Amino acid sequence: MQTKANIQNIAPYQPGVLKAGAIKLASNENPLGSSPKALAALKADLDKLHLYPDGGCVRLRNALAVHYGLTPEYFLPGNGSDEIFHFITGAFVSPGERVLTTEITFSEYTFAAQLFAGAVDYAPLTDGRLQLDVLLRKITPQTKVIFLANPNNPTGAYCEAAAFENFLQKVPGEIMVVLDEAYAEYAAAADYPDSLRLLKTFKNLLITRTFSKIYGLAGLRVGYVIAAPETIAYLNKTREPFNVNALAQTAAAAALQDTEFVQRSRANNEVGKKYLYAEFTKLKLKYYPTEANFIFVYIGQDCVTAFQKLMDRGVTVRPMRSFGVPDAIRVTIGTPEQNQKFITALKEIL
Amino acid sequence: MQTKANIQNIAPYQPGVLKAGAIKLASNENPLGSSPKALAALKADLDKLHLYPDGGCVRLRNALAVHYGLTPEYFLPGNGSDEIFHFITGAFVSPGERVLTTEITFSEYTFAAQLFAGAVDYAPLTDGRLQLDVLLRKITPQTKVIFLANPNNPTGAYCEAAAFENFLQKVPGEIMVVLDEAYAEYAAAADYPDSLRLLKTFKNLLITRTFSKIYGLAGLRVGYVIAAPETIAYLNKTREPFNVNALAQTAAAAALQDTEFVQRSRANNEVGKKYLYAEFTKLKLKYYPTEANFIFVYIGQDCVTAFQKLMDRGVTVRPMRSFGVPDAIRVTIGTPEQNQKFITALKEIL
Repeated sequence: MQTKANIQNIAPYQPGVLKAGAIKLASNENPLGSSPKALAALKADLDKLHLYPDGGCVRLRNALAVHYGLTPEYFLPGNGSDEIFHFITGAFVSPGERVLTTEITFSEYTFAAQLFAGAVDYAPLTDGRLQLDVLLRKITPQTKVIFLANPNNPTGAYCEAAAFENFLQKVPGEIMVVLDEAYAEYAAAADYPDSLRLLKTFKNLLITRTFSKIYGLAGLRVGYVIAAPETIAYLNKTREPFNVNALAQTAAAAALQDTEFVQRSRANNEVGKKYLYAEFTKLKLKYYPTEANFIFVYIGQDCVTAFQKLMDRGVTVRPMRSFGVPDAIRVTIGTPEQNQKFITALKEIL
Repeated sequence: MQTKANIQNIAPYQPGVLKAGAIKLASNENPLGSSPKALAALKADLDKLHLYPDGGCVRLRNALAVHYGLTPEYFLPGNGSDEIFHFITGAFVSPGERVLTTEITFSEYTFAAQLFAGAVDYAPLTDGRLQLDVLLRKITPQTKVIFLANPNNPTGAYCEAAAFENFLQKVPGEIMVVLDEAYAEYAAAADYPDSLRLLKTFKNLLITRTFSKIYGLAGLRVGYVIAAPETIAYLNKTREPFNVNALAQTAAAAALQDTEFVQRSRANNEVGKKYLYAEFTKLKLKYYPTEANFIFVYIGQDCVTAFQKLMDRGVTVRPMRSFGVPDAIRVTIGTPEQNQKFITALKEIL
């Protein structure tokens, strides 16, 4: 077997661990379950699963167009945002060319670059936050794509609207800027960017979003990219004909209408956030303020050991060692009961 | 936007056309619907869709291992076989290297090569059949992967066991041979290869199969590759962490147990095949004998015009012009009623 170095060097993804009976606060899933409107719509399609899905995702793209006040040509759905990142590196990165992202961020940007033999540069964070001036200095003539998560996963920190627009003005127009907004629907800050407004000015901006988080459909796998129609048409060439399964398409289109569920999920998240902030403060633990549905918190001890001890107490979280931080965990904001159980367990191990 | 030539040159896939109210005999779906056992299992998982799927597909790989009498390390599931083909070209083809396949075959082999900037060589068919000696002569020092469909889609012809084993003995061991057996469960010929038996001898053999055809789960998207464990471990590196959705995993594992549905689907196919053969003979139309659930038939007129006329009469088939054959169609073997309706419409347009 003749292997390729860029593939051999890929490190396996480390998924959140699920223990039977444990509360899973490890993968930033919606603790309230799935959008009820999505589930209801999906059930009506169970007698058509012998048929191929709509390869063009026509209904879902139309629903996204209505939701955002754009035309369907601005949208391309994928088998989760993960697949979208592959579309992007496949479309823009040739072997030896470079992708720029940050340290302590979502690992799939690096993976998507490696798959197409791209090299990756990492800009440091400061207190879990993007430093856009540092990112600008890391751009090279070989840089083809910049991946930024906003809010950032796993730190939860966000980039403000003015700073991001200023950054876009300084990035050379031939470099594609991918803004991963997987958690955008949870962002509560007044100056969180209205990124869709920037699409018409910055043709090199690609925004990715997902139905895995606030809509509670992680199991179905559906994310999407929003970009200029010419970019979408080009990315579409890299796509398998039936990349998004039929139930995901149906559920996602219906979920967009479920404003009640989205509001309830946001409200639950805000309540949990305040509770966890207060408890961390009482415990004198440093955390990063979050605009997402998880909190990055330093626990003053080895995070893998702590992870194991918490799991023994029925709560799974994500140790941050694989992100290069040995003494922090990322905990998903759960229901009030789940958050209390987590704090009780945390107090026992500190 | 700086584009890549290998991506710009990709021609869009031409999906089967679905007309409201028409009988769809265009995409080789199972006319009996989905495996009832698969549907029953799937319904029990609808309350867990807010959780990420099992990234390791543990239950499905275990079920495949039991089904085939191998260990789970021989299997890797994908988002349909289409995704498996991407794993393979991503893992083995670098820009400028070559992929070998045949003319008049499944278009996704070419697409998978193009995605990684590979070049494609095509061996001709004779009467819709593989010519393995011709394929051997087409191998170059740059050939990394050979893709063969058996039975071939769209011609339905198959390669016999002895000829295929002889072929494998002559292919250099560093070239990966992908045997796409999407329709294997329909094959009725006594000398159709027992390809799994060859896995231990030929470490360069990769077999792909799917739940989209006889199991009736095309809408869910799940296929898999069977190969030597070291090959599977290497291919696994090219995979997104959550590439197979949760319902697909559950349904596929249950479908493997549904021998009653598989037998019923095979029996329906054999009845329809004999009926269509007899009708084509009466109409003096040349067709290729099939080992799959579709028939390639020459209709003595432009196939795109005929396709349109058939659709006007409520039956959709696949015109073969995009495969380079202007006067043939591929028709899926349907239920007896669907087959009769197709023949009635066909007689009207001849």
